[in-house]
Amino acid sequence: MSTFENVSVQKEANVYFGGNVTSRTLTLPDGSVLTLGIMLPGEYEFGTGKPELMEIYDGELDILLPGESAWQTIHGGQSFNVGGDTKFQVRVKSITDYCCTYLDA
Amino acid sequence: MSTFENVSVQKEANVYFGGNVTSRTLTLPDGSVLTLGIMLPGEYEFGTGKPELMEIYDGELDILLPGESAWQTIHGGQSFNVGGDTKFQVRVKSITDYCCTYLDA
Repeated sequence: MSTFENVSVQKEANVYFGGNVTSRTLTLPDGSVLTLGIMLPGEYEFGTGKPELMEIYDGELDILLPGESAWQTIHGGQSFNVGGDTKFQVRVKSITDYCCTYLDA
Repeated sequence: MSTFENVSVQKEANVYFGGNVTSRTLTLPDGSVLTLGIMLPGEYEFGTGKPELMEIYDGELDILLPGESAWQTIHGGQSFNVGGDTKFQVRVKSITDYCCTYLDA
């Protein structure tokens, strides 16, 4: 099992879509912020503030990125980027374990 | 928001009961281990290895502790202890955000 070391973790969870998407917020030693989360099967639309790097640790989902017309299938071990101040859609096909890193614009 | 500082966090989630219960494992600077987790509404039975302190950050559940015949209702802000090498049952009534600390016997 790989780990994040020397991090700060917010105790209270982030809960979205009635608990179908939940996460914990971590702050790394360099000040960068990420969330470790779980998405249960379902369809969700997310809004971004900062640009995001979404790393999929496990699971399978389809994504529709802003400005695109074709859905892409993403599996555990793959990642994708999303721009800032935009929206993207996901169709989660199996329980998805992810890490969302907020990037400086 | 309160935080845990200078901790190690396992990247991969712990996933139980088809994703209805998920958690992340943290190791604190003193070496103690805890999990921060979410339980969605439902009925679950958990087995313990080490004794556990269950702190409920948010939510509502009923618990049946080993050796007891009466269920107790636990709300956010409350906590309960469970012995080691035993089982306990929960009936989660609303999304429950918890912290499970593993105690030395």
